Amino acid sequence: MSRRNRVSEAVIRRLPKYYRYLKDMEKSGVERISSRELSDKMGLTASQIRQDFNCFGGFGQQGYGYNVSELCNEIKKILGLHKNYNVVIAGAGNLGQALANYVGFEREGFYIKAIFDVNPRLIGMSIRGIQILDIDHMKDFIVNNNIHIGIVCVPKDKAQEVTDQMIECGIKSIWNFAPIDVETPADVAVENVHLSDTLYTLVYKMNEI
Amino acid sequence: MSRRNRVSEAVIRRLPKYYRYLKDMEKSGVERISSRELSDKMGLTASQIRQDFNCFGGFGQQGYGYNVSELCNEIKKILGLHKNYNVVIAGAGNLGQALANYVGFEREGFYIKAIFDVNPRLIGMSIRGIQILDIDHMKDFIVNNNIHIGIVCVPKDKAQEVTDQMIECGIKSIWNFAPIDVETPADVAVENVHLSDTLYTLVYKMNEI
Repeated sequence: MSRRNRVSEAVIRRLPKYYRYLKDMEKSGVERISSRELSDKMGLTASQIRQDFNCFGGFGQQGYGYNVSELCNEIKKILGLHKNYNVVIAGAGNLGQALANYVGFEREGFYIKAIFDVNPRLIGMSIRGIQILDIDHMKDFIVNNNIHIGIVCVPKDKAQEVTDQMIECGIKSIWNFAPIDVETPADVAVENVHLSDTLYTLVYKMNEI
Repeated sequence: MSRRNRVSEAVIRRLPKYYRYLKDMEKSGVERISSRELSDKMGLTASQIRQDFNCFGGFGQQGYGYNVSELCNEIKKILGLHKNYNVVIAGAGNLGQALANYVGFEREGFYIKAIFDVNPRLIGMSIRGIQILDIDHMKDFIVNNNIHIGIVCVPKDKAQEVTDQMIECGIKSIWNFAPIDVETPADVAVENVHLSDTLYTLVYKMNEI
C-alpha cells in the first residue's frame, strides 16, 4: 500500500474518533474548523491533532483551519471506509444477533452476507434478511462469496478454531468479540474487542474518584 | 480511596487484561508464573509487567514468580471487582437486550436490576427475569434501588439526556454505547465504548498489511 510511513498504533486508534466527530460536524452543517476548535471538542491538544494529521501529509493551511467535509473524506479514505466490505458473523447468540441487527454498519459499507451457528433451532432463521446458516457451511460460503471480514461471536473455547477456519478460506480481517485474544498470522488483521475490560476500567475509575 | 499514587491511564487499561489472563490461568490450574512467562502470553515485555505491578506495590518476589491465584485476587480487588454492583440499562434495543442477556456480568458481581425503554411494545416484557420498564420511571427506580452503574444503549440524540438523568439520581458510573462521547462531571466515571471505532481500525490495518 502507499502509506507514507508506518503510523503509530496510538494515531491509528484516534483516526476513527476524528472520523466520528467530523462526520457529526459535517451533518450539523459546520464547514470549517481550526485545530484549536477541534481539540476543544475532542479533548485532545491542538498540537496533537496537527501532529496526527502530519502523519498523513497534513490536511490544513496554517491559520486557516480545515474544511470539515474534505477532512472527513480524507480520513474516511485513509481508514479505507470509501470501499465496501463483505462480512460474515460466526455465532448467532445475543451479540451476534445484535450486530446483525445493527443497520449502521451497512451505511458505512459493511455488508453482512451470512451468520453461522451450530444451533439447529437458529439455523434457517434470518435477521433482517440475513440467513443463519449451519457453521459447517461457513468455509464454502467464505470461499465463494468474496468475504473480507469475519466477526467472531462464538464462545471462548471455539473462537480460535473459528478464526483459523476463516483465515484458511482467505479472510484477512478478524473482529473478535469472544473473551480471549485470538491469534492471527502477520498478514491477517485482528481486533480483539473485550467489552468487559471497559466495564472493569469503569469500576476502577468509579472507586478511585 | 487509598490508592498509592495516581496510576496512568495506560496501566489502568491493562489491568482488566491481566485479570482476564490470570483468571484463565487459574481456571487451567496454573499455580505460579514468572513475569517472563506472563509477558510471552500477553504480548507485553516482562519489564512492562513488573513496572505495572509496581504501581500497586508489586506482587512478586524477584526470581520466584507470582502466585497466580493471589495475583488474580489482588488485581480483582484493585479493579474493585470483589464488590457487587447494581446496574440499570437504558435502551432495550439490540445491544441493550444483548447486554441484559449476557450472564457473564452477573458472575462478576454486576446485577442488572431493570431495563428502561420508551417503546410501549417492549415495556412490560422481561429478559432473564429483568423487567423492561417505562423510561419515565427510571429516575425513581435509580433513587430507590441503590444503583451504581448506568448502561446507556439509547440512540445518539438521547444519550446525553439519559446520562444526565442517571447522574442526577446519584449514579457515579456511566457505561455508554451510544455513538457519541457523553460527558459527565468530574466525580462521575464514564467509559464511552465505540464498537465501530474498532471496526474502522481493523479495516485500516487490513488495508495496510
